[in-house]
Amino acid sequence: MATISIVGSGNMGTAIAGLALAGGNDVQVVARDQAKVAVDPAVTTASFGDALTGDIVVLALPYPALDDVVATYGDQLAGRTVVDITNPLDFSTFDSLVVPADSSAAAELAAKLPGATVLKAFNTNFAATLASGTVGDVTTTVLVAGDDADAKAALTAALDGSAVRVVDAGSLRRARELEALGFLQLTLAAGERTQWTTGFALL
Amino acid sequence: MATISIVGSGNMGTAIAGLALAGGNDVQVVARDQAKVAVDPAVTTASFGDALTGDIVVLALPYPALDDVVATYGDQLAGRTVVDITNPLDFSTFDSLVVPADSSAAAELAAKLPGATVLKAFNTNFAATLASGTVGDVTTTVLVAGDDADAKAALTAALDGSAVRVVDAGSLRRARELEALGFLQLTLAAGERTQWTTGFALL
Repeated sequence: MATISIVGSGNMGTAIAGLALAGGNDVQVVARDQAKVAVDPAVTTASFGDALTGDIVVLALPYPALDDVVATYGDQLAGRTVVDITNPLDFSTFDSLVVPADSSAAAELAAKLPGATVLKAFNTNFAATLASGTVGDVTTTVLVAGDDADAKAALTAALDGSAVRVVDAGSLRRARELEALGFLQLTLAAGERTQWTTGFALL
Repeated sequence: MATISIVGSGNMGTAIAGLALAGGNDVQVVARDQAKVAVDPAVTTASFGDALTGDIVVLALPYPALDDVVATYGDQLAGRTVVDITNPLDFSTFDSLVVPADSSAAAELAAKLPGATVLKAFNTNFAATLASGTVGDVTTTVLVAGDDADAKAALTAALDGSAVRVVDAGSLRRARELEALGFLQLTLAAGERTQWTTGFALL
């Protein structure tokens, strides 16, 4: 059992909270608007700015919100595992990412949180596939990248017993490819080449 | 029916030739070593350097071989559709691509072949999934990127009737993401996180 804080209560945060609960963990959901926290009453809720209780902190927020998280929670995140789920798209063009081509949102976040252990995960999963545990008839795979094997193992163990499986995608350098995959999947869904309830499955 | 030349007779070239035949096309396989051409006798075989007969030319070769293709076939490729299937990995480290982060092998090739129409395709498919037409129980998806809608439509039509489906992944700028996906898939297979007979499926 792990203690997990999830910052954000949108579709992704709600789905990840469900997985964390299914894994038998202590779950805190941190949200600006408590009314939007639609998850199981077993979670503890908190407001943005309140103390984090999780050893693992999932930032279930859009990319532009990360700077506010760093400003508000930077000190508290030191010593914790921070999970970045963002796809840093340029939504005005849907034709590129806003992070440098040789970097990633996760690498940028790690640079801003030198005391934290940053993992990239969940960004290649549409929320519906986390909620259902399936992509079509295939079990949903959560790809996780990071430089700390213990942190990756802890996240993997925390989701053991949930509907998804976790696969180690390598070092944090692979976040660049995970973000490319997330970007591609978003463009395919937006172009109706795949569905928001499916996307890529790993077999 | 299209005329398709496939340069290369390895696992990928052989599988793509099989798909092209199944689609009812006129297929030429160009190979340095004729003894390695293990495809259906219905294909026409030729040696590297011989005249290309296909309106669509699939370069089923590893990335380092592209320069030799440009040197040998550059003039002949003008006016044709050229399909780049490469994953330009740094195989010494398995930790990056050898093309610039903001570019792709396909974009580089297009710059070297200004008279040709370059498409990116097949690089996200392991050969076994092209040969079988399935990734697990899911139909294999060939993702194709390129700036010429007619060329993409012609490739898609040529593979109609084969075991795979073709999905338009957008402009040639998306080749960068397709190469990231191909790279990621190769690292996952090398690390035994997926199999060389499966990989990613699109649902």
